[in-house]
Amino acid sequence: MPEYKAPLRDIKFVADELLDFPAHYANLPVFADVATPDMVDAIITEGAKFCENVLAPLNRGGDIEGCTRNDDASVNTPTGFKEAYRQYVDNGWASLSSDVEYGGQGLPESLGTIVSEMVGTANWSWGMYPGLSHGAKNTLEAWGTEDQKQTYLTQLISGEWTGTMCLTEPACGSDLGILKTKAEPNADGSYAITGTKIFISAGEHDMADNIIHIVLARLPGAPAGTKGISLFIVPKFVVNADGTPGDRNAVECGSLEHKMGIHGNATCVMNFDGAKGWLIGPENKGLNCMFTFMNVARIGTALQGVASAEGSFQGALAYAKDRLAMRSLTGIKAPDKVADPIIVHPDVRKMLLTQKAFAEGGRALVYLTAMNADIVHNGATEEDRKAADEMLGFLTPIAKAFLTESGLEAANHGVQVFGGHGFIAEWGMEQIVRDARISTLYEGTTGIQALDLLGRKVLMTQGASLKQFTKLVHAFCKENADDAGMKEFIEPLAKLNKEWGDLTMKVGMTSMQNRDEVGSASVDYLMYSGYVTLAFLWAKMAKVAQTNLAAGTTEEDFYGAKVKTARFYFQRILPRTASHAITMVAGADSLMALEEDHFAF
Amino acid sequence: MPEYKAPLRDIKFVADELLDFPAHYANLPVFADVATPDMVDAIITEGAKFCENVLAPLNRGGDIEGCTRNDDASVNTPTGFKEAYRQYVDNGWASLSSDVEYGGQGLPESLGTIVSEMVGTANWSWGMYPGLSHGAKNTLEAWGTEDQKQTYLTQLISGEWTGTMCLTEPACGSDLGILKTKAEPNADGSYAITGTKIFISAGEHDMADNIIHIVLARLPGAPAGTKGISLFIVPKFVVNADGTPGDRNAVECGSLEHKMGIHGNATCVMNFDGAKGWLIGPENKGLNCMFTFMNVARIGTALQGVASAEGSFQGALAYAKDRLAMRSLTGIKAPDKVADPIIVHPDVRKMLLTQKAFAEGGRALVYLTAMNADIVHNGATEEDRKAADEMLGFLTPIAKAFLTESGLEAANHGVQVFGGHGFIAEWGMEQIVRDARISTLYEGTTGIQALDLLGRKVLMTQGASLKQFTKLVHAFCKENADDAGMKEFIEPLAKLNKEWGDLTMKVGMTSMQNRDEVGSASVDYLMYSGYVTLAFLWAKMAKVAQTNLAAGTTEEDFYGAKVKTARFYFQRILPRTASHAITMVAGADSLMALEEDHFAF
Repeated sequence: MPEYKAPLRDIKFVADELLDFPAHYANLPVFADVATPDMVDAIITEGAKFCENVLAPLNRGGDIEGCTRNDDASVNTPTGFKEAYRQYVDNGWASLSSDVEYGGQGLPESLGTIVSEMVGTANWSWGMYPGLSHGAKNTLEAWGTEDQKQTYLTQLISGEWTGTMCLTEPACGSDLGILKTKAEPNADGSYAITGTKIFISAGEHDMADNIIHIVLARLPGAPAGTKGISLFIVPKFVVNADGTPGDRNAVECGSLEHKMGIHGNATCVMNFDGAKGWLIGPENKGLNCMFTFMNVARIGTALQGVASAEGSFQGALAYAKDRLAMRSLTGIKAPDKVADPIIVHPDVRKMLLTQKAFAEGGRALVYLTAMNADIVHNGATEEDRKAADEMLGFLTPIAKAFLTESGLEAANHGVQVFGGHGFIAEWGMEQIVRDARISTLYEGTTGIQALDLLGRKVLMTQGASLKQFTKLVHAFCKENADDAGMKEFIEPLAKLNKEWGDLTMKVGMTSMQNRDEVGSASVDYLMYSGYVTLAFLWAKMAKVAQTNLAAGTTEEDFYGAKVKTARFYFQRILPRTASHAITMVAGADSLMALEEDHFAF
Repeated sequence: MPEYKAPLRDIKFVADELLDFPAHYANLPVFADVATPDMVDAIITEGAKFCENVLAPLNRGGDIEGCTRNDDASVNTPTGFKEAYRQYVDNGWASLSSDVEYGGQGLPESLGTIVSEMVGTANWSWGMYPGLSHGAKNTLEAWGTEDQKQTYLTQLISGEWTGTMCLTEPACGSDLGILKTKAEPNADGSYAITGTKIFISAGEHDMADNIIHIVLARLPGAPAGTKGISLFIVPKFVVNADGTPGDRNAVECGSLEHKMGIHGNATCVMNFDGAKGWLIGPENKGLNCMFTFMNVARIGTALQGVASAEGSFQGALAYAKDRLAMRSLTGIKAPDKVADPIIVHPDVRKMLLTQKAFAEGGRALVYLTAMNADIVHNGATEEDRKAADEMLGFLTPIAKAFLTESGLEAANHGVQVFGGHGFIAEWGMEQIVRDARISTLYEGTTGIQALDLLGRKVLMTQGASLKQFTKLVHAFCKENADDAGMKEFIEPLAKLNKEWGDLTMKVGMTSMQNRDEVGSASVDYLMYSGYVTLAFLWAKMAKVAQTNLAAGTTEEDFYGAKVKTARFYFQRILPRTASHAITMVAGADSLMALEEDHFAF
């Protein structure tokens, strides 16, 4: 099993040196006094210990044991999960980045993201239990009445209760417009919620005293489609007047899904049988209410891509240094051994460097995205908030889809580095692939993210959101135009940055003629955008590293490795854009020509 | 669970119309009278029924139940596996393409390949039990004494006994030169075999009366490395003089591996504790003996790529026609339904067409490879056999590595088409991914195949083996240069065919300076070669289809679909070569620059 070691040096490089979180926090009035460098440092260091020592050791066992549903519809989580959660709550991790007014510590979302990265890499299944509370907390923060906040939000923030998001039904996932769950008014102002929700992560478990479900349902006579969906709070135990959990509500776990991975997390079919619920937010505006913070939820899933890449990289690196096979083609490297460690072989290095480039580049992208989320919620000016919101909207589908796709690729490289042993459960590498496989599916599939990016974010703004980003890239290229040491990065980046705009124009033009061109180009467009976005971040990281190297540093090896990894990324990964650039403008005809009945004979 | 329907129309298209197996069989003296079109047809039709009705229904159950090792070291296979195997043997499937002299039916290996494709797609784990006997049979056919053939080969051919190949040890897989298992001479001419072998597929089970292990081991004083390895026959039950299984030999299953997939197959740790074995083939030439038919064994694994693509395509296609979500961007397609079936969406079609193009193109490549194997063993002239052997050597690493990589990709698309449901076990789509994951690892990883292709096959022959193939492509392009309907295929194919040679030259030149350049380029080179090889086959298939369409056919839809799929392949898949062409000549520096200790800090 790969042992998890929080990559603290790299986390700090990205947060402090690349993105300058200290200045960022100092600029946000609400964080200036709280998120001091010392405090941030202490939190990351302590978080790392908890993840390495408490969560990581539970990861394999959680996969093997899984969750169990008992005859009374209660669910037991794997051995040790409950105790780890207690520790998490007692040490205040649950309330880190929540509103002080309701018991939170008022620290930035981006700091929460750093902790979540470590939690998720150590044990993704476990991390989903507190992770899912996020959506419920955000819903309550944004749309709850004061009473609802006092009743539910405080308990979710403390972590004594957990939350879920109940969206998907057997017949609808991406297309929520066709959902059927009903909400009928009761005499007391509450609603009776009836329907079946599936794929409810952390829907039932033994970790907390109450579970607060945020449920999408239709009021009687609500308009069809997405405009007739409302949001409801449905607690597992109806809350007494004194705030304690009271009567068992008519919502229960009908069964646990048997899944490819994330076995430690309880993925529930939830049956609502006239369960008592309370409306949250305006009637029929449920989807809009949710979309206001969908971006933040998706950053959480983008993190799984980073976690998959980082976790499998750590496992594969250790193995590649240890496992002996064949001799280097350029001569024996370990004459005292029967064969050389496989890290001497170029293709093994290619796989390791690919994992590394995705993990570190992905980290930079997620932190950048989270930084924008900080500003959206706490920016000093309306203008700042608006600009950050646009940037967040643009970066989110890229981060979510590109990082989960590259995370899955990295996880597969991890298995491949191990050879046949990668397929064997005890090494833990195949678990990372199985766990990672969900990440391109939930919170909007890659296809859905790609339509969001190209259709909603880029084309619907006439390219404005893209331009906001390419301008940054352009400015960076210009600034460094005379830096000879940066030439190998700046030249290709500038070229791609221009091509990105050109391709967008082309796709935009053809899709005005035929809307299917959007769907035909979208996934290639998204992947292309991801590679270029990461190239920008890798070029910036190379710049920071080179600046430090030029200034004289005691960490020559660390900064040298950054430059070398950037070089690898530009030479061996970034050229993938060449293929996507061709296929994204190849047109929809070859996709649409085949009649449904002629796919197979 | 996807229901398996043998793609008989496509199988016949590839075998009869693309590759003209009838003429091929008629040209091989040993098959001319046996492999008549009627006979071949009957075998394929009956094979399809067996696979659809007997094997496919056991596939999910096999995954869930897995194998069990009992306290006495015996192993039970999943419910129904044993009975299906009995039926397989009773109906003569085991002996199909084996030597008549030892009880076989003397039919071509390529016909066996067609049956194996159907068996493997229906139930890969089950298919590995008879599949593994192949290696043992081939070893005995090629190197066994007459006595060994009578004793073991006859029983393996009938299927009453099964076989294994015991190569891998805990400390060595790809690098067999460092294996440690010992063979010490006994007084009676046999050897005492001692050591541990791992990853032994079908190493122990309850399907057959005896299991014949072919074991790699070292004789006392044998040279170090690959030149000191010999082959031994080690039966589970030592065979009595009358040919019946006698005393239990000192070889047993120490444990079953817990694996990501192929749960229905028993992957055993086999402990040899002074087990009685008999030398087969010359002393110290064990690896050479094995390499003589490694190509054939690898075709079997290439088939898993086709099986993964075909199986997941069938599942995803059915779901995409059935599942409703969203409306087509070009207007409502199913006004009577709450939403359109997802097959209307361009990106869903892209995934389905990718699976289809890999499945059908892969089938063509495997059958072509198997056709060459027929000629290697049964060609009319020495010249024929030599040419086919060179072609087989060239195509095998491409078929093995490229088709398993593309099969894994296709299987992942299958999950993706299902959205969140793809992650749920009951649909069977995630099983295909888990089962497929081993295919890029065993029988030589993708990295090993790539070194075999670029290093051994292409560069060591100074490009001769590549030229043999590119000449075929060139001739085809020339023949069709004036066919306006083929222009869209011929132009890019001719260009890539030339580029293939140029890139090979470049890589060859740099690798003379630095041997690491081979390993740096090899996987990109292999993938590039795979895409071009499939392009050649897709262009040929388009030609066959267009010829039929031009001549007037009652199967316009079928041939039309072929042309459209070829077009899709050329427009949306083949451009991936553009990236591989860049990265394969990007040089080894960016891979080798990072010091071992600087991969992580």
